[in-house]
Amino acid sequence: MNGADRLCDVLLANGVDTCFANPGTSEMHFVAALDRKPQMRCILGLFEGVVTAAADGYARMADKPAATLLHLGPGLANGLANLHNARRARTPMVNIVGDHATYHLRHDAPLTSDIESLARPMSQWVGRVSSAADIRSRAEEAYIAAMSNPGVSTLILPADAAWSEVAEEALVPATLPPRRDVAPEALRAAAAPLRGGRKTALFLGGRALRADALDIAGRIAAGTGATLFTERAARWQRGAGRVSPRPVPYNIELAVAALQEFETAILIGGRAPVGFFAYPEKPGFLLPDGCDVIELAGVEHDLHQVLQALADELGPRHLAPAVTGPFTARDLPAPTGDLTPSAISQAVARALPEGAILCDESITSAGRFAELAPNMAPHDHLPLTGGAIGIGIPLSVGAAVACPDRKVVALQADGSGMYTVQGLWTQARERLDILTIVFSNRGYSILKGEMRNVGVNEFGRNARRMLEIDDPALDWCSLAKGMGVEAARATTAEEFTNLLTAGLSRRGPFLIEALI
Amino acid sequence: MNGADRLCDVLLANGVDTCFANPGTSEMHFVAALDRKPQMRCILGLFEGVVTAAADGYARMADKPAATLLHLGPGLANGLANLHNARRARTPMVNIVGDHATYHLRHDAPLTSDIESLARPMSQWVGRVSSAADIRSRAEEAYIAAMSNPGVSTLILPADAAWSEVAEEALVPATLPPRRDVAPEALRAAAAPLRGGRKTALFLGGRALRADALDIAGRIAAGTGATLFTERAARWQRGAGRVSPRPVPYNIELAVAALQEFETAILIGGRAPVGFFAYPEKPGFLLPDGCDVIELAGVEHDLHQVLQALADELGPRHLAPAVTGPFTARDLPAPTGDLTPSAISQAVARALPEGAILCDESITSAGRFAELAPNMAPHDHLPLTGGAIGIGIPLSVGAAVACPDRKVVALQADGSGMYTVQGLWTQARERLDILTIVFSNRGYSILKGEMRNVGVNEFGRNARRMLEIDDPALDWCSLAKGMGVEAARATTAEEFTNLLTAGLSRRGPFLIEALI
Repeated sequence: MNGADRLCDVLLANGVDTCFANPGTSEMHFVAALDRKPQMRCILGLFEGVVTAAADGYARMADKPAATLLHLGPGLANGLANLHNARRARTPMVNIVGDHATYHLRHDAPLTSDIESLARPMSQWVGRVSSAADIRSRAEEAYIAAMSNPGVSTLILPADAAWSEVAEEALVPATLPPRRDVAPEALRAAAAPLRGGRKTALFLGGRALRADALDIAGRIAAGTGATLFTERAARWQRGAGRVSPRPVPYNIELAVAALQEFETAILIGGRAPVGFFAYPEKPGFLLPDGCDVIELAGVEHDLHQVLQALADELGPRHLAPAVTGPFTARDLPAPTGDLTPSAISQAVARALPEGAILCDESITSAGRFAELAPNMAPHDHLPLTGGAIGIGIPLSVGAAVACPDRKVVALQADGSGMYTVQGLWTQARERLDILTIVFSNRGYSILKGEMRNVGVNEFGRNARRMLEIDDPALDWCSLAKGMGVEAARATTAEEFTNLLTAGLSRRGPFLIEALI
Repeated sequence: MNGADRLCDVLLANGVDTCFANPGTSEMHFVAALDRKPQMRCILGLFEGVVTAAADGYARMADKPAATLLHLGPGLANGLANLHNARRARTPMVNIVGDHATYHLRHDAPLTSDIESLARPMSQWVGRVSSAADIRSRAEEAYIAAMSNPGVSTLILPADAAWSEVAEEALVPATLPPRRDVAPEALRAAAAPLRGGRKTALFLGGRALRADALDIAGRIAAGTGATLFTERAARWQRGAGRVSPRPVPYNIELAVAALQEFETAILIGGRAPVGFFAYPEKPGFLLPDGCDVIELAGVEHDLHQVLQALADELGPRHLAPAVTGPFTARDLPAPTGDLTPSAISQAVARALPEGAILCDESITSAGRFAELAPNMAPHDHLPLTGGAIGIGIPLSVGAAVACPDRKVVALQADGSGMYTVQGLWTQARERLDILTIVFSNRGYSILKGEMRNVGVNEFGRNARRMLEIDDPALDWCSLAKGMGVEAARATTAEEFTNLLTAGLSRRGPFLIEALI
């Protein structure tokens, strides 16, 4: 067997049995090794941004990493924007990047580049295999790093390490270090302001946003008067019967207003909120001056256990039944008339099946989703975490691969959707049960708002040429058809509702182009 | 005026009047400044890989840089693969990347990343503006670096430097350093083997591949018996009446065979040839042992002048009339029957109009182009330089913007074409005169060959799932229609020839899907 076989075996021994890939010549031995392992599911993306976002969506839902396979520096480069999103989501991933044979690097062949320099900004762990003998330990390191302090591990695999022979060896799953514990004094420090009646906000992230953990957080909030917020959710279990933390608003003024009353912030998987962007004369750090920030636990902790320990520390006197929303969205009337983001969110809210996965890159077209979500059927919400647009379509691919029995609905803005439009082909290739809703507003609407934020209200030719994408209009039905995905266009709320009903009741990929 | 206005003014003062862009919030002040400069042509790409490849194609044809405008680390990341190609083409470019306001970076906001680490592998020069006052000198540095030792300059522009006020100031074009001279002794050293009858190969690159420089090289070759090769052509003036150096073969065995006789290699804008990839037991450096390598001049020299000086040094006794091909391709019969790469190259060869620009990402579908090119109408050939696939469609965008009166023909493999398929939209938006020919073979054919190179002849399910893209088949006519480009499908050589005639005789974008 060769080094490439060993790498496959280490991945499989650790339960990494799904590989999103776009290989090249330097990875041919790894492809040949994968070909000898039918238990590894290999899924092709026609562009590397599809590969990395799909691996992100997969791991958010499967709670274990997928592998990726990328071709040299340029292949990695194409996947970096969505690795950036995965880094911000704290998604575990084993990102495998082929490189030239070690002895070939000195020739500076055309495809040579500094892979480490490219990988580091978007990876929590970067390592290079030095020889075939080294593959097991490096691959285990990559896996352990990805799992224990969740994040992207990038493992660089030179071609000669892949093709060189190694001895057979019995493999066992790698031993993960125990989760970090929270010290009793940290729990006491967090409990004190909650008990003492200080205005307290809990910032939840990571697995603190799963239904069972949210229930504990909800009991704490109900018993102490604390407010729950989400910061940088990667996967958020939402809907009727679940506790609903508030998202921190994107708009700086709204965020400051929402946070101004708080005297204490407790971070439980979330971070202290900061502005997405800087604006002249506006604050970057969003908590009020003098607000105490208590960093109780990060995503590397067992956040369910941390919340339980905090509840135990508070004791029954400071706990009360969690407040959750009733399932009222199903009773909403079907929207009529103009097709607006608000109408679309209403139509989706009333029809979304229980257990659906919402991949959300709706940007300015979110409509009433934030308001309606607590009363929709219980579902998982996977948002854009790092602000690098172009995640939605392939994120839905990964989620559908991880959860073949759940309906995936991708809420997709048109400008961002074009970034990784190639993901539609993988939806079709893998017959994934994904309904994609494209909000076709034919412009970078968020940027028009941001131009106004910088004081420009009249757009000249150059600004219009950079912010509008209406000439020519994108025809999403043709784009989808070109990649084997059936699609239809809606121009009214009634048409949309009919297509939504049809799309939700069938299996397999379908796309609705919503002209808003 | 603010720093963003200053940056626009510095670019315009230096003749940089075309900006390929995909901006974001942190670049809104720069967008507002561009909006105040109608003399700057701003061209939107719906993905950053389109932006950077278009800037590459533009500069290869315009002989001056375009600017790009990219949004933070992720926007740069999306453009990196084609910056890699531009780096290998030694294309001058002023790549402008917005960043958060300097004081906002410490908050590690969601879109924050290490832009320098991302930029360095694909840039010859990387600089960061520290304040508005600093913009002029940094932008001039970036421009001078891009021009004098041709390559990609990446200038990082923090938002607060863009929005802060600066005093009015008179601008003048930056002073470029004089081109490096070649020392007389270097010329004598290069002339000696040519005079002495040693088997000599000249490796030509950069502007040594322009018609007038090739003519000098051709006279040297004819007078001394030397052989001309191209290595890493970025732009190659080819066709009837022009001297035709030989491309170094991609295949290692063929390359070694083509080069085995040489005792001396003289580099004039080219590099000593190395294997594109390493293979077990095959050489990486392709010249024979003991071959002298004389590095006479790189692309930072005036290569026309260097060739003239070498000719002068050799003297009339060692010069002879250059050998060029007759214009016989027009007499080829129209191909008939099956639509093969060979038939397509024959059809294009006979019909290509004089002065056309061939953007070539045909990969395994090149057919007989290399053989026919010396006898085709004089044209410019722009190949894939760095091996990072996904350049062809947007490269044609840039070439057409630079040369609006010349027909651009893009020879596009299907797998690579999907990487930056969004470039078709910019073809339509800008009404560019581009005929795109997609070689639809529905697979990564080069990789099937490379799998055989590593000894795998039987492909199992995983290998097939990673190397074939036939399920579902891509429908390029629908994809083109979806982005506003008219398209038609050819399944026979006759149909192709008819579509080619139609496509060449009209103006504006048109796409032929060639089912090969």
